[in-house]
Formats: sequence, structure tokens, C-alpha cells
Amino acid sequence: MEESENYFTKPLNLFEYEQQAQKCLSPMVWDYYASGAWDEITLRDNHAAFDRIKLRPRVLVDVSDRHLTTTILDQPLQMPLLIAPMAFQCLAHPEGELATAKAASSAGVGMVLSTLSTKSLEEVAQIYYSNYSQTPNPPLWFQLYIHRDRNLTRALIERAYTAGYQALCVTVDAPVLGKRERDTRNQFTLPPGLQLANLVTISGLNIPDQEGESGLFTYFAQQLDPSVTWRDLEWLQSISPLPLAIKGILRGDDAVRAVECGAKVIIVSNHGGRQLDGAIASFDALAEIVKAVDGRAEVIVDGGIRRGTDIIKALALGAKAIMVGRPVLWGLAVDRQAGVNHVIEILHNELDLAMALSGCAKLEDIDSSLLVLGN
Amino acid sequence: MEESENYFTKPLNLFEYEQQAQKCLSPMVWDYYASGAWDEITLRDNHAAFDRIKLRPRVLVDVSDRHLTTTILDQPLQMPLLIAPMAFQCLAHPEGELATAKAASSAGVGMVLSTLSTKSLEEVAQIYYSNYSQTPNPPLWFQLYIHRDRNLTRALIERAYTAGYQALCVTVDAPVLGKRERDTRNQFTLPPGLQLANLVTISGLNIPDQEGESGLFTYFAQQLDPSVTWRDLEWLQSISPLPLAIKGILRGDDAVRAVECGAKVIIVSNHGGRQLDGAIASFDALAEIVKAVDGRAEVIVDGGIRRGTDIIKALALGAKAIMVGRPVLWGLAVDRQAGVNHVIEILHNELDLAMALSGCAKLEDIDSSLLVLGN
Amino acid sequence: MEESENYFTKPLNLFEYEQQAQKCLSPMVWDYYASGAWDEITLRDNHAAFDRIKLRPRVLVDVSDRHLTTTILDQPLQMPLLIAPMAFQCLAHPEGELATAKAASSAGVGMVLSTLSTKSLEEVAQIYYSNYSQTPNPPLWFQLYIHRDRNLTRALIERAYTAGYQALCVTVDAPVLGKRERDTRNQFTLPPGLQLANLVTISGLNIPDQEGESGLFTYFAQQLDPSVTWRDLEWLQSISPLPLAIKGILRGDDAVRAVECGAKVIIVSNHGGRQLDGAIASFDALAEIVKAVDGRAEVIVDGGIRRGTDIIKALALGAKAIMVGRPVLWGLAVDRQAGVNHVIEILHNELDLAMALSGCAKLEDIDSSLLVLGN
Amino acid sequence: MEESENYFTKPLNLFEYEQQAQKCLSPMVWDYYASGAWDEITLRDNHAAFDRIKLRPRVLVDVSDRHLTTTILDQPLQMPLLIAPMAFQCLAHPEGELATAKAASSAGVGMVLSTLSTKSLEEVAQIYYSNYSQTPNPPLWFQLYIHRDRNLTRALIERAYTAGYQALCVTVDAPVLGKRERDTRNQFTLPPGLQLANLVTISGLNIPDQEGESGLFTYFAQQLDPSVTWRDLEWLQSISPLPLAIKGILRGDDAVRAVECGAKVIIVSNHGGRQLDGAIASFDALAEIVKAVDGRAEVIVDGGIRRGTDIIKALALGAKAIMVGRPVLWGLAVDRQAGVNHVIEILHNELDLAMALSGCAKLEDIDSSLLVLGN
Repeated sequence: MEESENYFTKPLNLFEYEQQAQKCLSPMVWDYYASGAWDEITLRDNHAAFDRIKLRPRVLVDVSDRHLTTTILDQPLQMPLLIAPMAFQCLAHPEGELATAKAASSAGVGMVLSTLSTKSLEEVAQIYYSNYSQTPNPPLWFQLYIHRDRNLTRALIERAYTAGYQALCVTVDAPVLGKRERDTRNQFTLPPGLQLANLVTISGLNIPDQEGESGLFTYFAQQLDPSVTWRDLEWLQSISPLPLAIKGILRGDDAVRAVECGAKVIIVSNHGGRQLDGAIASFDALAEIVKAVDGRAEVIVDGGIRRGTDIIKALALGAKAIMVGRPVLWGLAVDRQAGVNHVIEILHNELDLAMALSGCAKLEDIDSSLLVLGN
Repeated sequence: MEESENYFTKPLNLFEYEQQAQKCLSPMVWDYYASGAWDEITLRDNHAAFDRIKLRPRVLVDVSDRHLTTTILDQPLQMPLLIAPMAFQCLAHPEGELATAKAASSAGVGMVLSTLSTKSLEEVAQIYYSNYSQTPNPPLWFQLYIHRDRNLTRALIERAYTAGYQALCVTVDAPVLGKRERDTRNQFTLPPGLQLANLVTISGLNIPDQEGESGLFTYFAQQLDPSVTWRDLEWLQSISPLPLAIKGILRGDDAVRAVECGAKVIIVSNHGGRQLDGAIASFDALAEIVKAVDGRAEVIVDGGIRRGTDIIKALALGAKAIMVGRPVLWGLAVDRQAGVNHVIEILHNELDLAMALSGCAKLEDIDSSLLVLGN
Repeated sequence: MEESENYFTKPLNLFEYEQQAQKCLSPMVWDYYASGAWDEITLRDNHAAFDRIKLRPRVLVDVSDRHLTTTILDQPLQMPLLIAPMAFQCLAHPEGELATAKAASSAGVGMVLSTLSTKSLEEVAQIYYSNYSQTPNPPLWFQLYIHRDRNLTRALIERAYTAGYQALCVTVDAPVLGKRERDTRNQFTLPPGLQLANLVTISGLNIPDQEGESGLFTYFAQQLDPSVTWRDLEWLQSISPLPLAIKGILRGDDAVRAVECGAKVIIVSNHGGRQLDGAIASFDALAEIVKAVDGRAEVIVDGGIRRGTDIIKALALGAKAIMVGRPVLWGLAVDRQAGVNHVIEILHNELDLAMALSGCAKLEDIDSSLLVLGN
Repeated sequence: MEESENYFTKPLNLFEYEQQAQKCLSPMVWDYYASGAWDEITLRDNHAAFDRIKLRPRVLVDVSDRHLTTTILDQPLQMPLLIAPMAFQCLAHPEGELATAKAASSAGVGMVLSTLSTKSLEEVAQIYYSNYSQTPNPPLWFQLYIHRDRNLTRALIERAYTAGYQALCVTVDAPVLGKRERDTRNQFTLPPGLQLANLVTISGLNIPDQEGESGLFTYFAQQLDPSVTWRDLEWLQSISPLPLAIKGILRGDDAVRAVECGAKVIIVSNHGGRQLDGAIASFDALAEIVKAVDGRAEVIVDGGIRRGTDIIKALALGAKAIMVGRPVLWGLAVDRQAGVNHVIEILHNELDLAMALSGCAKLEDIDSSLLVLGN
């Protein structure tokens, strides 16, 4: 998108970013980003779950001065938003994770860098913190996939700690990769020039080309460890200098167990509908988990959030913050860092406006009475 | 529409008025009138909520003599209908609010004039009352947006009282304006020649032109007061020589509070789906509010009413009257005052027929047993 | 339809009859038959209500010998089916009600002749009974609209009794006519040559031509009596030598009252979705009414029945028989008496097959355990 | 499908097999396989019932070593899958039931041969067991339609026993054949060269040609016995050297009765939506039947299963195994035995992956807590 273009080609909302991004991306990349597992039932249901719940706004509250700031693990957020970990962001734009980090950092929102990033975790941290001369700063977390090679896993944690990441986001819903049939059809792999920036130097690992299958699917089958259990989480907890955020929880009992293992954050997620198709929409799982956690950890939810009103609904059910994934990629594809910043700005403005219209001057005013809940 | 045209080009119902109006109006005006906030979920749900509830008609009741008359704040209505406050009616037709007032007055239904009218409140009152030499007459109310400039607010109230308005309809669901993306895209503003007839003379205020945004959105951000609270309502109550009708209530607790502040009428409304998208359909909020108010004020509902059967359903849940907005504009656009009169006549005839077919000779016969309610 | 046409142009089911009939009929007649009131919500919901309820068939029941026969008011039916009263059948085919009567009589199903028939009640009775030399025969009933002119009403009853009709079917859901907008648009009236065969000779009444309105709508407004109450039903009961079947009941309390007035049959009906749009689907109203009547009268249901499985569902909720309307007209339009006979035959075969597949050898075996009911 | 074709023409899932198969088959055969009874409501609802129920996956379970093996009647299954009995498989490919048997046997899944097979039961058994030199082997069952000619029925049982079939699958939901209107329209019958391989030699029976009707419908009416009751089941139990699996149960009370008659397996089925249209989806009937059987027999469910996640859902409700029908025919039509093997492989891989993503290493780990059930 040329900067000189008319202002009004600029998308007004996240759905329009999605439409424009599709035009910017190759079919293989679009499919990789946009698709979900199998019949994509959960992919669709994630957003639909928000639309099913209606709001009960309060009136005549002084909302002249709105505060969207909050904290997660005691670090400040300009709004209750973190950018979800997403692999291979250089597919969207050559600046990839660096552009995303610049946007997140300048906007004061959190970012979770994927193990499978196409820029190294050190580069990303440097960029992210360049906006901040001192603590506290908004949170930069490192998402960890536990590889079969535990030394590799341990090395990643150490590097992340050294580079200044402030929490480990451990993804637990991917013992194997979900089946995204579009990727199989496309024999998805990384194009020449892109690589697993965190892994290639220390392990030589890369996404394979494979006939008749997604290279990422094969990578997971070969490198990721499907035998990981709660004991491994305890092990991680014991060796990690960083607090743990457990991503991919959809049941209250699992949330309790994660808390008992020492997790400080529970991320309610079905991996954007990309793992087990037919899994409950993450928003539909949120209330059970908030209740089970009972304040012993902070709860984040992701999946299907496209509007400021979706954020209000998530917070009303007890989430401390939310994560957004694909829309950030659409912003990146459409207009690099500026696109990501605009996506964040849209969500900020929508949340701000939705709070004003709901009678909430600050995030603490958002309670479950704002929702029409079934009985 | 030429009067000489064939009778059957005349719309048969309010949906047909909408279709014809779209052809009469410029895209910018059509969009301004027709659109809702964000994804327009509430806009659609407002009408759908009525269709979801089914009727249980009584038979073998003498319905030869039907009475649709009622009162609101002790003023007579030929049917339980008021015309909702809507800004800028001269966009639909140059005669604007004057044509609407003539239609409402001649039909004996209520009218609520918007603060943001394009004809002055004095002109409108004069036209409205020209049909009536003495009291009681059908109610003419003035809708009040509380501006940051409290002197302006006070001046409007005094002018409304002086001009003969009989209640103040205080809109409380618009501390800021909802985001209607079509208006943003169109950079909605008033065309040359139209102005804020109530404000321009005393304050010089007008709707700005602004690149990349709806001028009305900007107007609200600049002029309206988002800090208004229940205390301001008490202040209004203390200074107003007119009874207050509070418009934009969607919760029982807010309705109770409004009553405690002295409100005589509660208007259950989500602003036609134009403020907080995802808000509960106003019909779905009605029962809770009627129960909470418990007879201490009269309850009006608006939003999505397009058929006489919708009116019956609203009354069956305890509304004293209903308000209709957009269809009045469609009538105005299609055929000036005659169009508005015809829209009112259609609703009158539909309500009359629906009452006959439901076994209700008068409005008091409409009770909740007419509805199939969930348990 | 030429008799020489290939066998397979013959419709296989009632939906195909509807499609073929639309091709046979003028738009005005098609619209008159096919349409419902206002938005046609109830028209659509009538059939959808059946599809919403699922069946729980029994197995390993001896169904080699199926019995579909039953009685209504002690008169035999070859299957639990009566042809609903429908006006103006000569619009579908010049033989009109006579062809229908021949078909019903030869199939051994009931028929209810409309007050507004285009063949006289005497002609129809003669044809109907020509298949029967002695009693008991299947029931032929006369449907009565109570006209303002009570002498006319009384004369119709006397003629019906004299001609051999065996019950009066009193329609109570039409104090005024429902608004079928297609008829208004078409200015529906009877074409030259057709007349109200029961009324023209004794009263000179006919359906008027009227600009901008359905002639039938005007006829009702002028001739039918909207002041009829339960007292008039008691009067009818007192003067009628025939038992009363009350048609158009949708509430348990009204059903009880009809029984207390002496009614022997309650017909659960919303007039095929042609009177009060938004009224509950007749199938959805059935269970409440069966419970309220508690065996003191026989219950019939009509509206939306298009398949043998629909009949099973109605009987499982306690209906003694069902009525079918429009499909009979489609049969008449497509192939005169033979078409009506085929429509009846299709329903017979479908009910027969559905019973076999549900484990019901006779109608008494059909109970509510066949249905998946909500709790 | 030519073996030389590009790998990627190979279907990725069972829905793609269906699409490719439609291109391979004549309209008459496609319609025969694909259609359901009457309005095909149950046909559609069978699969939709699975999509309505959402999953609650567990995380951090060691799923590195998945076991999909189970048993049915103590015989081993490589996965909880049997191929449902389906008539006339030579319509899909000349190798018909032999290709299916080779595929099932080599994959180690069960197969139920239809009475109405186009290859003789002896040929099929020989092929099936050729992969196995000793017991236990995966189950090969014979599906029995009880013909009016009880000697024929008895002869079929004896032949099945002699040929090595290990259970009798008695179909009880077809006292008469359901009405599949596409077959009526097509006058469905077997093309020259195909015959009822199990019946032609001993009884000379074949599917007739009949004008205006499905030949199979006529065959059922003439040859099958609609008088079969629970006593006949007792008789079968008394004469059969093989255990009985009762297919076509949709009610708990019928399941109990079947168990009391000695049945060892209850197959919850509505015959793929081909018998009583409007019958409850088999998945929706499963829980009631599992509860009623209470462990006294093994429960199988079929109908609408197209994904590995569907299998998980069925097992979570208590099914011991599931049966799949039409997709096997699509595999057969597209690529003979290889197609059937691929269909089985897809289901195996999907179930395997779905288990991993649900936190289930073995089938016993699948419990009802995996499902979001209403209350």
C-alpha cells in the first residue's frame, strides 16, 4: 500500500484489513494464515461465540476520562492486549516480527514471540525494548514449543531470559500439529530465504519440503515432543527463570492443574481453530476457567476477537487481557509496522468507544452484569 | 412521488417504504439513516427479536368496536405511537421536521423533536399545535442532548418550555457517538443550506466537515458531554419545568435509578442499533425493565418496530406506547407529509387488525398471555 | 395435465404438486391460494414446526397389517384426514368443489365445505353422498362464517342440515380478514362467471371489485360479524341440529370454553397462516389444547401438514385427525378429481409407510413416546 | 482414477471422496447411494448432530504412543470401525464387495456383508480371511434381512456360519423399505449382469424392474417380512450359532428388549436416513441407549460419521465402535480397493490425530468429559 494512496483506502476495521491482506498475499501464505483445522468449525465458531452474547450497557456514568491501561504479571499495558505468538511473520512482509515488535512496543501492548519466528529472538527483543529506557515496560514474552531435543528447549529458555523476555508462554495444545488441509494441498513450506531464525543457528532445523503434506506438519511430527506431560511442566517451572503462561487450556480442571504447577497466567485458547477442529470456542470456555482458577493466576483469552466489543465481553467474563493473532498479520501484510499500529489503534479506539457506550470509564468497571447470560 | 401516479405504486407496508426511500435518497443520506454501529448486529436483532416471539390469539371476543387510543403522561394518543427523535430530517425532504410535525399532529400521535433538528423547535411547535385549539393535545416532546455548554443546555430547555413542548426526552445512551462506519466512509456531514436550526442562532454550532470521519461523530466528541451522570439528571430534574422521559435504558437497575431521579417515562432503546453494537435488542430488554419500574413510570420501547403485530407484542410485555423512527423518514422521503401520514396509517391499520385478530377490542385487553414466552 | 403424458410427470409428493400447480394457475389465483398474512412468518412456521420435532421409531412390531381407519364424531374415515374448508375452489379448476367432493368421497376421507364455495352446498352434498347408499359414511361438514345478517346465517345452517351435512365447522379466527398483501396488490376478486354459490341466490352477495384492496377483504369487512362472542356460539349451539366443530383455536383456555359451550370438535388452526401473522404454529399449540380439552372433545389440527410423518407427529400429540388444505387445491389445479385423489393417496401411502417404519400397526399405537420432546 | 494421476488429485478427506465419486457414478447409482428417505431431513441431521457437539480437549497428556485398537465381541479391531452393510456394491465398481473385503481385512477393521450383496457371501468370506491364517481376526459379520420365506432365512444363516461369519447383524428398521424418491423417479433397479448373489442360486430372487417405482422398494414389499417381532428375534437367537447384533435401534426401551432377547451388540442406526425420515439422528439417540443397555451389550453407532472427531464424540458417549457406510462406497467408486483402504486410512489418521489433540493416548481415555453437553 503506497503511503500516497487516498486515506480512504485505509481499512476501517479488522475485517477490512483481512480483505485487503488477502489481495496482498500469495495463496499459499494466505491459506496458511487464514485456515483452520479440518472443517474449520472451531475457526468460525470462535468469532461467532462473541456475537451470540449480547451487552447490557449502563448509562449516566461519567466516561469523560477513560482508562484502558492495565497490567499483566505486573507489567503495564496501554490496553489489555497482547499480540499472540505467530510463526513465520516474514511471510507477511520481509520485516516480519521486527515490524510487529516495533508496532507493539510503540503502542505499549504486549507481544509474544513464537519459537518459530523468522527473525531471531535477540533481534526482536532489541527492537522491542528500544522504545524503553527503563522498567517497567510492556511485556515481551517468548512462546515455547517443547522440542524432543530438551537441550535445544533449555537453550531457548536461556536465550530468551538473556535477551530480556519476561515470561515463557508454553503452548500445550500442540503435541502434534492440527491438520490444516489447505496447507496439505499447498504442500506448505517456507520459501527460499526464510528460516527458523531461532533454531537454524543452533540446531540447523528448518521446515522441510515434503510431497503431499504440509512441511510444518512434518516438522512437528519430527521435532516436537508429543510425550510432554504435567511433569515436564513442573520441570520447566523448575528450570525457568521466567514465570510461565500456559497457552491452550480449554478446561477448568486443566487450568487448576496448571496453576498448581506454578503457572502465573492461563491462556484460554484453541490455537485459533488450527488444532482440534470441533473444540469449544475459547470465549465459550472462558467462564469455566476463570471460575476454576479463582484468582490464583491471570487469565488471557484469544480466538476470534475482531472488535472492541469482543474485548469487553472477554473482560466481563473475567479475562485480564486478550490476545489477537491473525489481524496483526493482516496489518503487517497491508502496511508493515504502520499496518500493525493501525490494527492496534482500531482495537484501542473501538474498546475505548465501547467502554464509553457501556458506561465503563476504566477496565475495572467491566463486570459480568454487562452480559446477557443464559441461566 | 407524483400524486398522479398509479395507486399501486404506493407502498403496502413499512418494508416497501424502505425500499422506495432508498431510491429517493442519495447514498450518503441513505447510509446515514439506514446504518447501525459497527457490524450492525443490534440493528438487525432489533427487528428479529419481535419475530422470535409468537402470538396466542384469543377468539370469540367482540372486536367490532376497537379502541386504539391511550395516553402518555396524561396526554392523548390516537394510537400508542410517538415519532422517535431523529436528527436532520431535511435530509429526507426539504420540509423536514415541519412535514413530520404536520403528519404527527394531524394523526394525533406523539412527536419527539431532536435537538439536532434542521427546523427550529419554535417552528415545529407552531406547526404541530396548529391542529389544536385547546388542550389536551397529543404530546410534543423535545429531545435533549446535554452539551458541554450547560448554558446552551439550559437555554434549550427554556425555549422548549416556552414553545409549548410538554416533556423533555433526555437521551442518555450517547455520551459519545456510536461508530457508524458507513458515515465514516462517506465523511458524512450536512450539505450546504442545512444547519442545526436550534443551535446555530444561539451558539453558531454546526456539523463540521472532517476528512476521514463522520462530521456528526466529531460534533459529538467536541460538543456533547460524556461526563454526564445521574447527578446531572437530578440537576435537569430540578431546573426543568417539564417532566423527564429518559431515553436509552436497557437495564432494570438503570430504570429504577431513573425513576428514583424523578423520571416519569422510561424509554427502552438502543438508539436504533446506532450506538453500542452488540447491545441487547430493545424488545428483549423490555420485560426486565417493566418489572423493575413496577408502575412508577410509563415505559416506551423503540427499535425494530415495523408491523402492527410488533406493537401488540411490545404492549403485551408492558409498554405503554412505542416509538418508530426510520420508517417515518422513509415516508418523508417518498411522499413528504403524505408519506409520513401513510406510514402512520399503515401502522394504525395493522395494529387495529392485529388487535381484532388477537381478540383485543382495546389496548387494555393486550396482556402477556398473548405471547408464547419461554419458561 | 394431459392424461396421455408420461407417468413420471406425475408428482411424487405434495411439494411437487405445489410446484406443478403454480404453473397451472394465474398469478392472481396462485397468490390467493399460496399467500399468508403480512410477512408470512406463520405460514412458513406451520410446516417448520413439524420438521423441528424428531421421531423415535419402535422396531420389531408386527406391522404387516396396517389400519389407518378411524372415526370423527363417530363417522368413519379411511384415514385420519379431512379436507379443510377452502373458498372459491372453481378458481383452481372449473369443477371446483364438486371434483374435490368426488375425490374425498371416493377416498373415504372427510370434507368440510366452505361457506364461500363456488358450488352450492346442495350440489356438493349430492355428489359427496352419491358414493354412499347408507350410513355411516365419511363426514361431510359445512363450514360456517357468521354473517352480520343472522337470518342468512340461520338459513345456511338449515340448508346444510337439510342437505345432509353432519356437523357445523364454525370458523372463529376471522372476525375480520387477515391482510394478505399479495391479494391487496392483485386487487383480488372473483373472475366473471364465478360466484358465491351459497349466497348469491338468497342474498345477492358477491365478492366486490375494489380499487387498491382485495375484494375478499372488503367482503369480510362488510358482511362478516366481528362482534361474535361465546354467547353467539351458545346461540348457534342452541339452534343447530348439527354438532359444532370450532375451528381456529390456539389456546387451551379458549378450547376449554368451546367445550363448555358444547363443542364436540376443537380444530387447532391459525387459518393456514392467513389471519394473524406471527401466531403460533398450529402444531406448536396442539399439546396445550389436547391437555386442556382432556378428552371432552375430539381435536383436529391443520396447518403445514405435507407428509405422512407430519400426520404421525400430530396424532402422537393427541390429535384425532388432521386437515389438509392447499395441497388439495394443488391436486385440483393439476389434474381435477384425479389430482385430488392422488394427493390423498400420497398422504395415505406416506402415513401407511411411516406407521410401518415407526412400529405402529394401527393409529392407536401412535403415542407421544414416538416424539423427541423438549423437557 | 488412473494410478498415474498426480498425487494431489487424491481426496484429502471423506467429503472430497464424495465429490469425486459423484463424477464416477451414473446418476441412478449416485442417487441410490446418496439419497435418503422423503425430504432427507434425517440424512442431513445425522452429520449435523456431530457438528453441534463441541469438544473439551485435555492437554499435557503423553500422547506419543497412541493405541486405536479395540475389540468387538472379543475380536480385534485396528481401530473402532466396521464397514456398514450396504447392498449392491458392484454398482460402485465391478469388484464390489470383494474389493471392500480386501480393504477391510488388510486394514484390520470389521465388515458387515449385506444380504443383498452382489458377490456371494462365500466369496467375500474367502477373500476376507485370506489375510488371516489364524484367529483371532477382525470381525466379519453377515447382515440378515428376514425374508417371508423362513427357510431361505435359515439357509442364509447356515451358509454364513459355514463360511465363517462371526455374528449375525439383524436389521430391524426395515419391515418395509423407506421411500427414497430419487429411486422412484429413476425406477431404480440392478443393471444387467448384477444379481443378488446370495439369493439367486437358492431362490431365483432378483430385483424387479417396475414402472413408476424403485425395484428395491418392490422387492422389499414382496419378499421381506413386515410381521417380524421380538418373538422372531427370540427364534433367531434360538437357531443361530452366531451372536446377534441388532441394527436399527433408536430407543432405550427397544435396546433393553433386544438385550433381553440375548443380543450381544446394539447398533444405534436410522439406516443412514433412508428409512423413516424425521427420525432422530443416531448420534442424538446414542446416550439414551448406552444408559439403557448399561453394559449388558456392546453399542455401535452409525450415520453421518465423516471425521475422526465424529468417532471421538461417539466413543465419548459410550459407543464401543462405529460403522461407516457411504464413504466406503465413494472410495470404491473412486479407486477400488485402494480407495476403500484410503478412506479407512484417512479415518484412522484423523482419529489418531484427534486423540492426540484431545489428550487421549488410547480409546479408554475417551470419556464424556470431552464433550460440551447441555444440562
